[in-house]
Amino acid sequence: MNRKIITLTTDFGTQAGYLGAVKGVILKINPETRVVDISHGIEPYDVWEAAFVLRNSYRFFPQGTIHMVVVDPGVGSARQALLIISDNFAFIGPDNGVFSFVYEDEKILKMINTSNPRYFIGKSSTFHGRDVFAPVAAYLSLGVKPEEFGTEAKECLKLKIPSPEVEGKIIKGEILWVDRFGNLITNLDHNLVNKVGSEKDFQIVIGKKIIKKISASYYEGREDEILALVGSSGFLEISANQGSAEEILKKKRGDKFRIEFKK
Amino acid sequence: MNRKIITLTTDFGTQAGYLGAVKGVILKINPETRVVDISHGIEPYDVWEAAFVLRNSYRFFPQGTIHMVVVDPGVGSARQALLIISDNFAFIGPDNGVFSFVYEDEKILKMINTSNPRYFIGKSSTFHGRDVFAPVAAYLSLGVKPEEFGTEAKECLKLKIPSPEVEGKIIKGEILWVDRFGNLITNLDHNLVNKVGSEKDFQIVIGKKIIKKISASYYEGREDEILALVGSSGFLEISANQGSAEEILKKKRGDKFRIEFKK
Amino acid sequence: MNRKIITLTTDFGTQAGYLGAVKGVILKINPETRVVDISHGIEPYDVWEAAFVLRNSYRFFPQGTIHMVVVDPGVGSARQALLIISDNFAFIGPDNGVFSFVYEDEKILKMINTSNPRYFIGKSSTFHGRDVFAPVAAYLSLGVKPEEFGTEAKECLKLKIPSPEVEGKIIKGEILWVDRFGNLITNLDHNLVNKVGSEKDFQIVIGKKIIKKISASYYEGREDEILALVGSSGFLEISANQGSAEEILKKKRGDKFRIEFKK
Repeated sequence: MNRKIITLTTDFGTQAGYLGAVKGVILKINPETRVVDISHGIEPYDVWEAAFVLRNSYRFFPQGTIHMVVVDPGVGSARQALLIISDNFAFIGPDNGVFSFVYEDEKILKMINTSNPRYFIGKSSTFHGRDVFAPVAAYLSLGVKPEEFGTEAKECLKLKIPSPEVEGKIIKGEILWVDRFGNLITNLDHNLVNKVGSEKDFQIVIGKKIIKKISASYYEGREDEILALVGSSGFLEISANQGSAEEILKKKRGDKFRIEFKK
Repeated sequence: MNRKIITLTTDFGTQAGYLGAVKGVILKINPETRVVDISHGIEPYDVWEAAFVLRNSYRFFPQGTIHMVVVDPGVGSARQALLIISDNFAFIGPDNGVFSFVYEDEKILKMINTSNPRYFIGKSSTFHGRDVFAPVAAYLSLGVKPEEFGTEAKECLKLKIPSPEVEGKIIKGEILWVDRFGNLITNLDHNLVNKVGSEKDFQIVIGKKIIKKISASYYEGREDEILALVGSSGFLEISANQGSAEEILKKKRGDKFRIEFKK
Repeated sequence: MNRKIITLTTDFGTQAGYLGAVKGVILKINPETRVVDISHGIEPYDVWEAAFVLRNSYRFFPQGTIHMVVVDPGVGSARQALLIISDNFAFIGPDNGVFSFVYEDEKILKMINTSNPRYFIGKSSTFHGRDVFAPVAAYLSLGVKPEEFGTEAKECLKLKIPSPEVEGKIIKGEILWVDRFGNLITNLDHNLVNKVGSEKDFQIVIGKKIIKKISASYYEGREDEILALVGSSGFLEISANQGSAEEILKKKRGDKFRIEFKK
């Protein structure tokens, strides 16, 4: 399997040189690797955000890509340092839930607790991104066998991904994510809507706002009009054409909404 | 023509995984392509900002570079998805004005409306950056002929780029752009100044501030002194040495100024 | 020496196209170079921040890497444009102190004032990042000899890096840096602590807060508990487990603290 691409998803921001150190370590071990930035703008310590950003990105990369995530509030604790091999990708990062969607969506072949110091640089207990994850990713890209990095991982931490609840002709959902454009991305898979009732006779209720149909694109609404559509993540989104549904509706991650069907 | 570099200019910010998805799609289709970030900090939906950032960047890249722009408030509407071939570069993005400066400055050879779904992934109507522009850019980099991607584009949308007005011995201009340093970049080409009058006997009037000469560099002023110079964009800039002209003068994009010549 | 990697540390932010222009110039001269972003989020004109970010990044890169820094408030003044060759790396940027840590930590072989216009593009006096540093870095990566770029540099500007002061059984230090996580990174090398007294009987006093020991990792404290540890930069850090020591203690760059030993 060709493992020449390593992607990075971190909460480093772009100051302080943490990012430079990680890239340097990788390129020093394997100068042929291609390091691709996914995001360094994850909110500090926000494991859930990292998990969601990774979910929306990782599957689009070539087979063999190594996805490294460093959002690691528990660095230096007893938490495992994971190397996960699925049939398509490899994932490296802390065992704190950043791979919660990976466990749901990928066929996992191996899970290693990377404990072999031979593949670490130094022995820092505050910066495993640089000293553990980066060298493990780089050596993996060079062809080192996964088993070389440690022993089988014990059960891993999974964040609870909230599922929509169906009660008769009502679906109760919640907002999973709010993006930069103010789109409210919900936990509702569009297919569930059609299983429970008819999309032709339903309404979405979010706060005091009622939406009567699922639009095909943002552009169907007038400017700032609130509409619902199936977003690029595959989930139902509440959006405003060229505006921010977040600001207009004053809603945030975790807030609830419901769908009511007449029949 | 060597088309191995693809640049990205977007309003994605660095959260939500939109950027990761776009890079993944490109690298999956052509793992040899080099993806170069120009900016992901364009203000959401700010087509004008994207056009200006692209203008200040694109011409410096090697011949053949593919410049992809995703600032796309009209995604899912009937707006064309453009592939523009100039004698030096290729440009891919929505037909909403992001290429306004390109039409002025490049010799355009072909304009294609990329409508051939064979080169799309999926059929999203909310994320053409990932599903249309990224695969078109990647297949173009692999050598697919421009005509393969669709039919000739109809007339394209151009933003009005404000021109300075000359009235006798007065030039009226406006601020095109304010950069991160608070430099006020105007729409005034330096050559125009010397056509209208003598730079030795003139004044620049911006609000209550009067500037009597064009400096060679920021460093000619004392700290925080307001000065005028010919900036790196080729336009006249109003700046403050090591300070922010924007803050000192309280000026913003679109604000006016004038140059008065005595003779 | 293999010089195929060029890193970039700038205060450009991600708007305005300055970054795109720099990358374009480099890739046009040497399309085989690998351009690696360290940071573009340096505070505008903050030479000290650039110096510190570079310090925490540069040494991790492969031998031969070219590190280019563009934080350049004095652009257009008589300040030298430096090319520094050390036994491991090359450094390119303005002579304003951005290389202060490099002078301390590297074995310098050559220092050139890059004054040969043959290797510049254009003659801008406002954007040497694009017109001087970028082409010099790219031509260096192609194998042009350092002496080709100019003559030996005169004495270079070094920022004063504040050293801790020892007075009997007290060490007085200050905060060098505050990172995105609110960690207060001090100027105190851990080794100095053990030279002056016993770590078993000491206290760190910062404002009204007293810390009695050096922890092995952030995770040793309860949530938001203030602790001290040896950070990834090698310096003593004052941190809060999963919280921001900056916010809790209301401390900033330059603020003082002391260590008091009982014996």
